[in-house]
Amino acid sequence: MNIIESLHWRYATKKFDTKQIVSQEKIDTLTEAFNLTATSYGLQPLKLVVIKNKDLQKELTSHSWNQQQVADASHVLVFCIEKTIGEQYISKYFDTVKEIRDTPEEILKPFKEQLVDSFTYKSPEEISNWAAKQAYLALGNILTVCAIEKIDSCPMEGFIPEKYDELLNLNDLGLTSVLVLPIGYRAEDDMFSELKKVRRPITDTIITI
Amino acid sequence: MNIIESLHWRYATKKFDTKQIVSQEKIDTLTEAFNLTATSYGLQPLKLVVIKNKDLQKELTSHSWNQQQVADASHVLVFCIEKTIGEQYISKYFDTVKEIRDTPEEILKPFKEQLVDSFTYKSPEEISNWAAKQAYLALGNILTVCAIEKIDSCPMEGFIPEKYDELLNLNDLGLTSVLVLPIGYRAEDDMFSELKKVRRPITDTIITI
Repeated sequence: MNIIESLHWRYATKKFDTKQIVSQEKIDTLTEAFNLTATSYGLQPLKLVVIKNKDLQKELTSHSWNQQQVADASHVLVFCIEKTIGEQYISKYFDTVKEIRDTPEEILKPFKEQLVDSFTYKSPEEISNWAAKQAYLALGNILTVCAIEKIDSCPMEGFIPEKYDELLNLNDLGLTSVLVLPIGYRAEDDMFSELKKVRRPITDTIITI
Repeated sequence: MNIIESLHWRYATKKFDTKQIVSQEKIDTLTEAFNLTATSYGLQPLKLVVIKNKDLQKELTSHSWNQQQVADASHVLVFCIEKTIGEQYISKYFDTVKEIRDTPEEILKPFKEQLVDSFTYKSPEEISNWAAKQAYLALGNILTVCAIEKIDSCPMEGFIPEKYDELLNLNDLGLTSVLVLPIGYRAEDDMFSELKKVRRPITDTIITI
């Protein structure tokens, strides 16, 4: 299958096969792909929670508009953002750059100062919006990687972040949940897998100059 | 190359080879992939502008913090969002569902009313934020598709949307620009292609439950 065929194969799975489990090898591919996502300034203000626990999944379902996929999926991925991006977080990033690339301090310093400065002027809401956008970028990457790896998925904005944060102890980790992605394999009788994909005609969405 | 190797191969290209052009076949793959991106409620509040015009690219560079990649790239992709998502836009979406899937009006009606209703209560800023997140999702998809297709790219938030909107006549189309992606092929002497990728250790970004 080429990439376009894979993207056609993907759909928002409404019913998962409760017996099929995504292998650890495939989970490793997804987590590695998540960590390789491009992010603004390379700051990676993100974490991914990988849940494989039926009791917890059942509990989370009631905070996900009762979407049964959360309970039935092989795994549930929760895309989280860091709540505080300030001097400490940014300094840690530059320490990582220095360590990995062996870049001299004097080259990094002006970039670091500029970045710390620009985040100082952002409101908490602006930082949260900025980080959430990076989570969507990561979701876009992971949905495509799932399609390539023939893993079914169902991206969800419809859940109660506060409840997820509480149940997953995210507050203690300085995180908050922004997106949920149950993954697994489609049930044979998921009638949605047979429906034609609805898209605007490509002539409506592409402008060539 | 497997998908992880492709994602390692990808980097934010700092210098494009000005002589190499992305083929029309590859551009068709990218535009098709863009149109297949998953979006919230399936509403696709997005358009992609595909620019291949050196004079225009040069002009846009001065509104992109003088990042030379905009001028040098084979093509520049501009991710845009629809400025108005209301009853008219949502109705058109449901007309498309009806047309493609032959779904009876009585089944679609309650969903349509619910969706129109929920957007009525959103402020223009909330709608704009919601749409922008979908643009980031599409960017995440396209960056990965580029990596698979061995097309180099450089995602950019650093540009002046008002100037892009003016130069590309986006205002007249009810659109505004949110992300820019020059694409092409890396120059042989782009030293950034040789640098080690900087990422937080995967143990820092993944939580397994």
